[in-house]
Amino acid sequence: MAKNEKFVEDITPMDVDFAQWYTDVVKKAELTDYSSVKGCMILRPYGYAIWENIMHELDRRFKELGHVNVAMPMFIPESLLQKEKDHVQGFAPEVAWVTQGGESVLQERLCVRPTSETLFCEHYAKIVHSWRDLPKLYNQWVSVVRWEKTTRPFLRTTEFYWQEGHTIHATAEEAREETLRMLKCYQDFYREWLAIPVISGRKTDKEKFAGAEETYTVEAMMHDGKALQAGTSHYFGDGFARAFNIMYSDKDNVQRYVHQTSWGVSTRMIGGIIMVHGDQDGLVLPPRVAPLQVVIIPIAQQKAGVMEAAEALLERLKKKFRVKMDDSDKMPGWKFSEYEMRGVPVRLELGPRDIAAGHCVAVRRDTREKLTLSLDDIEDSLSALLDQIHDSMYAKAEESLRSRIYTAENWEELSHLLAEKPGFVKAAWCGDPACEEKVKDELQATSRCISDDQVKDGSHCVCCGREASKVVYWGKAY
Amino acid sequence: MAKNEKFVEDITPMDVDFAQWYTDVVKKAELTDYSSVKGCMILRPYGYAIWENIMHELDRRFKELGHVNVAMPMFIPESLLQKEKDHVQGFAPEVAWVTQGGESVLQERLCVRPTSETLFCEHYAKIVHSWRDLPKLYNQWVSVVRWEKTTRPFLRTTEFYWQEGHTIHATAEEAREETLRMLKCYQDFYREWLAIPVISGRKTDKEKFAGAEETYTVEAMMHDGKALQAGTSHYFGDGFARAFNIMYSDKDNVQRYVHQTSWGVSTRMIGGIIMVHGDQDGLVLPPRVAPLQVVIIPIAQQKAGVMEAAEALLERLKKKFRVKMDDSDKMPGWKFSEYEMRGVPVRLELGPRDIAAGHCVAVRRDTREKLTLSLDDIEDSLSALLDQIHDSMYAKAEESLRSRIYTAENWEELSHLLAEKPGFVKAAWCGDPACEEKVKDELQATSRCISDDQVKDGSHCVCCGREASKVVYWGKAY
Repeated sequence: MAKNEKFVEDITPMDVDFAQWYTDVVKKAELTDYSSVKGCMILRPYGYAIWENIMHELDRRFKELGHVNVAMPMFIPESLLQKEKDHVQGFAPEVAWVTQGGESVLQERLCVRPTSETLFCEHYAKIVHSWRDLPKLYNQWVSVVRWEKTTRPFLRTTEFYWQEGHTIHATAEEAREETLRMLKCYQDFYREWLAIPVISGRKTDKEKFAGAEETYTVEAMMHDGKALQAGTSHYFGDGFARAFNIMYSDKDNVQRYVHQTSWGVSTRMIGGIIMVHGDQDGLVLPPRVAPLQVVIIPIAQQKAGVMEAAEALLERLKKKFRVKMDDSDKMPGWKFSEYEMRGVPVRLELGPRDIAAGHCVAVRRDTREKLTLSLDDIEDSLSALLDQIHDSMYAKAEESLRSRIYTAENWEELSHLLAEKPGFVKAAWCGDPACEEKVKDELQATSRCISDDQVKDGSHCVCCGREASKVVYWGKAY
Repeated sequence: MAKNEKFVEDITPMDVDFAQWYTDVVKKAELTDYSSVKGCMILRPYGYAIWENIMHELDRRFKELGHVNVAMPMFIPESLLQKEKDHVQGFAPEVAWVTQGGESVLQERLCVRPTSETLFCEHYAKIVHSWRDLPKLYNQWVSVVRWEKTTRPFLRTTEFYWQEGHTIHATAEEAREETLRMLKCYQDFYREWLAIPVISGRKTDKEKFAGAEETYTVEAMMHDGKALQAGTSHYFGDGFARAFNIMYSDKDNVQRYVHQTSWGVSTRMIGGIIMVHGDQDGLVLPPRVAPLQVVIIPIAQQKAGVMEAAEALLERLKKKFRVKMDDSDKMPGWKFSEYEMRGVPVRLELGPRDIAAGHCVAVRRDTREKLTLSLDDIEDSLSALLDQIHDSMYAKAEESLRSRIYTAENWEELSHLLAEKPGFVKAAWCGDPACEEKVKDELQATSRCISDDQVKDGSHCVCCGREASKVVYWGKAY
């Protein structure tokens, strides 16, 4: 079937200008629109439906792990934000300030939450008294605001949508376990739901969250070899607990500080889906979050029996899949291009000959492979096909990730790789933030996370040549 | 079983101080907490879980009617808010203004959305071109901010959670249909899901939404006879379309303005649930939105076999109900009081004798009735029981509403009824806003909505005695 060339040529070739390709796909697939507030995006129905599917499954996983949802106010009084020193230093420069409410000027200005640690802390300090009250495993689904200079849909916007989990525990050990449990939860979700492989590990002190003792991250690799920080999980120790006086009376009647975590993922995920799976024809959506998993296109729909058969198939599939049938008066070829651009995982073509033969033609979005599926057990074969698409999208993305992780022994190799080979570079590091600073200034790359790999005996920092203490993944990042 | 007196006595008697009773119940049931931002509430897990159940079902109903979800920015530039004259006059006095972003003072201040008509209009103007693009049936689930002087949890808070539907249509007729369809959707939801009867009708011009041509409302009656405006649906005509230039090319190639609606319900609903169904012992939750529908209390839990039987029952019921089992070391009587206060519709008591007899004791929260349910088919009998509880809660609330709708023929009757008989008063009205103003000033009551009843021949305005044109429900309101 001929492509509608006009339709596809609006998307800038990926290898000519990847950033423009991304913007074109987001716009053409109607995921977002710009608003009159600089840097704030509108999530359009197709984009929001992806987010709904993500929320639905993540929320289920969080609840299975014992978390409950709450809703904190969107405003934080300036004095409250200032209670934890590192935290306010990190966030104050990038918040929006409300200075007037109704007709009067506020005595104390309020920031629109950039993140809600301080609000959760204030609440926890009020409601926690005894070891019986612990742990508290709270989460909320909200939008937050960070005043960004340069923005791009999903990747960096002034307002963005996310979940933020905030938990408190009786001991440091329990809080550390929670931090890593949620990191694994994100990693599993990326693999099992978005078909995206990630590397994970601890952030260096320079890259950690403002106020955290330790930050862990999952990092995905985009088509262009750049990293997307795809989710973070923070261990706070008792730093916030001391600043906010969150204490509990332990079994031995001693007052102790709680230990705390927070963790979050955001609509950035959708940017990751686009840049990991998308291709020249547009989106390629992982079946488990695709707003439409299957589209039915009747062929020669004016012929007797075609529409009846298409409607009957739709009714059957509706019970099990997110499916629609497009019986508009557009040409089939036009429809093919449109749903390919929108990344619908499977297209079913159903024409008079298919109906006579008791089957339909299924076309995979990811590989373009055509299959013939019997109508007798199409629910089962479609289910299996969607799983297969998920698995092969993951395998492809994993191959793309693995094949672009390089290693560097010294500065020359590191700078060569970062300049010439899009991807991540594993290299030893002494632990000095000055070396990270140098990599950033001279090579425009950052430490993405600390690898679990042991440092080889006698290995040297890729930057300064001193003895190395850690192996780090370096890369350019969104 | 003896009540834990201490537990219940913390709740102020309803007939002594209804407002304090309400506040006590909200606090004791841990629905909300105050935050350090005046007038903003924290929705705690139990309160938020009610809202989640409400959202889940309403969202399903909206989607069944063809609506899709989107997300608009939380900020509105001042110039955008000002585009529709009546709208800005209504809202400007009560918005929060962001004047600084990051380190710089904004050139144009932004308000935190009090409602999002203007944002939807701006977007619609960009994306709608042809009659083929219509209708657009959008909704969003967000929080909005209105700078309130006096606030009470759920009923009136500076920030509150709601859904706002915004739709545009080719014709006035279609938009009017949508306005009334959504009013009916709310009415059905109140009846079928919250067990709350409402009266519904059009608002007078004085009470309508800023910028609307017509506002329709559902109004519920609280225990104290006061009205709660429980949801509104607005018909805008083409007023916003003209202000924002939302036009489409019709089938005859003529450019026409779209016709518009918006409609919303909020976390106020939860205040309504409390004040319609609650009693002296606390919450009484309608089974379909109760976070916990059933609680299992093992009796003599230290005895052999009790915990095993309770766990087995829990596992069975989990598949069909929102259920928990409380095996904490508190006394059964304490647990009874606690779950009564939290409004859990059914308590199941399971002790050694029950187990031996193959049944358990079920206690209804609404009527305190005790029933014996066989364990053989407890899923079915419990399902039926929850439906029965819903129905009898509705019947009781309806009786309470119907019995407190009075009629007044003249000013004396109206003032007597409003002073002495908590409830709504139906009375004829001439249509002059000055009469509404007088009722408000002198009797502290407002027109809740215009009744569908025809005005009787020769009937006179309850306020001025001139010829009446409408029958209105009058009442004091939250």
